[in-house]
Amino acid sequence: MSRILVFGSGSVGVLYSFLLHKAGAHVVCVCRSNYHTAQLHGFTIASSVFGQHSFQPAIVRSVEDAVSLDDQPFDFVLVCTKAIPKSQASVAKALLPAMTSDSTSLVIIQNGLGVEKEFARLSFSGAIISGVTYSPTSQIAPGVYSHTETQRLAIGCYPAAEHSKHKERLFSLSALLKAGGSNVTICEDIQIERWKKLVGNTTWNPICALSRCRDLELLNTSSLASGFVRRVMQEVVAVAAASGYAAAITEEVIDVQLLRSSAREWPGVEPSMMADMLLSNRMEVEAIVGEVVMIAKALDVDTPRLETMYVLLSGLDWSLQAQH
Amino acid sequence: MSRILVFGSGSVGVLYSFLLHKAGAHVVCVCRSNYHTAQLHGFTIASSVFGQHSFQPAIVRSVEDAVSLDDQPFDFVLVCTKAIPKSQASVAKALLPAMTSDSTSLVIIQNGLGVEKEFARLSFSGAIISGVTYSPTSQIAPGVYSHTETQRLAIGCYPAAEHSKHKERLFSLSALLKAGGSNVTICEDIQIERWKKLVGNTTWNPICALSRCRDLELLNTSSLASGFVRRVMQEVVAVAAASGYAAAITEEVIDVQLLRSSAREWPGVEPSMMADMLLSNRMEVEAIVGEVVMIAKALDVDTPRLETMYVLLSGLDWSLQAQH
Repeated sequence: MSRILVFGSGSVGVLYSFLLHKAGAHVVCVCRSNYHTAQLHGFTIASSVFGQHSFQPAIVRSVEDAVSLDDQPFDFVLVCTKAIPKSQASVAKALLPAMTSDSTSLVIIQNGLGVEKEFARLSFSGAIISGVTYSPTSQIAPGVYSHTETQRLAIGCYPAAEHSKHKERLFSLSALLKAGGSNVTICEDIQIERWKKLVGNTTWNPICALSRCRDLELLNTSSLASGFVRRVMQEVVAVAAASGYAAAITEEVIDVQLLRSSAREWPGVEPSMMADMLLSNRMEVEAIVGEVVMIAKALDVDTPRLETMYVLLSGLDWSLQAQH
Repeated sequence: MSRILVFGSGSVGVLYSFLLHKAGAHVVCVCRSNYHTAQLHGFTIASSVFGQHSFQPAIVRSVEDAVSLDDQPFDFVLVCTKAIPKSQASVAKALLPAMTSDSTSLVIIQNGLGVEKEFARLSFSGAIISGVTYSPTSQIAPGVYSHTETQRLAIGCYPAAEHSKHKERLFSLSALLKAGGSNVTICEDIQIERWKKLVGNTTWNPICALSRCRDLELLNTSSLASGFVRRVMQEVVAVAAASGYAAAITEEVIDVQLLRSSAREWPGVEPSMMADMLLSNRMEVEAIVGEVVMIAKALDVDTPRLETMYVLLSGLDWSLQAQH
């Protein structure tokens, strides 16, 4: 039986815990803020794709507690926390007790760019698998998650050059998730998927967080809005192209992203960064916007719109915390 | 005795009512939301420049009521409301009963660009005087205003070509205000003063409203912030230059603006648009940012940072009202 450790029991962590649990794996979840609820009631997923299910993985407070449950190593350790610079470093450190065997693979399912860096710094001989997911999920009550629309996961090695070395780990994770009903794709270079998702996320997340409008609402508030959205996406595409992804990240990716928005019903979606802003939570400013702006600076790509939103978001992220 | 009508009893309206009252003019204030307080207690100004004073102008609810007090025409009608597109049109219409004599001059003391347009559309033969003021004033209790730092007013004709025709009206207003202790300058082209103030306002107002940081706080939250602030100011300067003000609006105006911020004490100032945002009031998006962006578009000047903030602010202004 596969052994899985899931770190971060937010909506992404719980959705993949559910799919792996459904596949018959032994799933251990590290829960911090929601430990007591999860201990008592487990988790419930109300999904328009998978139906409604309750399940009870093993619930622990820390990686040390997870490791002490059994002396067998974990096959996969999933990182499903938000990617905030300081917490990335502390998560990487906290995972160490579970990363003593090279039969253990680390699976990082987070949004943004450069999220693998802190984990790659650890002296760890197992595979690092990087994952990009599209799976609109939100917590609607303590331990209860609503999932809609789609579930897709793209996985690949970090760095991409490790693909042939760790291919069989990717297949094994993919097979397991597929057994649970998941839609999984294996990529030779997962960074392509990160950039594709960034074309949407690096644009809409800051726009919606700063304007406090959902995507369709924003398009409706000024005559310049829709041209502006495309120009922001073009800046992301230009940075991807300068980073070596010109063939994969094209104007077509923009068209797909814009089509996704226009196909939605009014008032559109509330991106994660907007949801975090409304709750005064830390926002993923660096992983989703800052990294792109810094790469642009290093490669001398002009990104005035992204730079503007990055400066404003850094201020907003600070001021929301300062008000606490 | 000079007869003055003041429309808009916010902090700017009350400060100039005070100075004109002190000069011995007969001042009539149109008060809407604060009518009862003003009727009962008049206004109090606690000023670090002028000292603390209470005064009681004539208080009316409407321009019709003001006109019915006496059959003599007003010498000056001051417009001191916020410049919001819809309210500009309704203010212009509301003033008509007081604008039947060509001995009456209209004095528009508002922030932003293009604020005179709605008034110039009226069939009115008197002078239109446009004013730019630096006078940090805020209401601290109903009818009580705190004024600090400085009081300066620049006045000139709208359009500037009317200067020689209406020069004596400018002198007469200036003499009256000076008698009240005001620091007044007469300009042959007041639009130069509008642009100078915009270099600061078009930059800081949206930055602070969107980030919810005061000016010095924002400069502290990201390594890119101070370079970004200068680049936004450079966009405003480029639009002013393309509009024919290259000689007056230069990089030196930016240095003066940046010096003003850096001379302040932590945490810096809260620009009016940030104050409005925190109170969920309408913001002067069009007058302070939109007009500059639209002129830039018409003159083919690239202003990506201003365009970004304009789209975000239009969204924020909408969403704050939608929440009401």
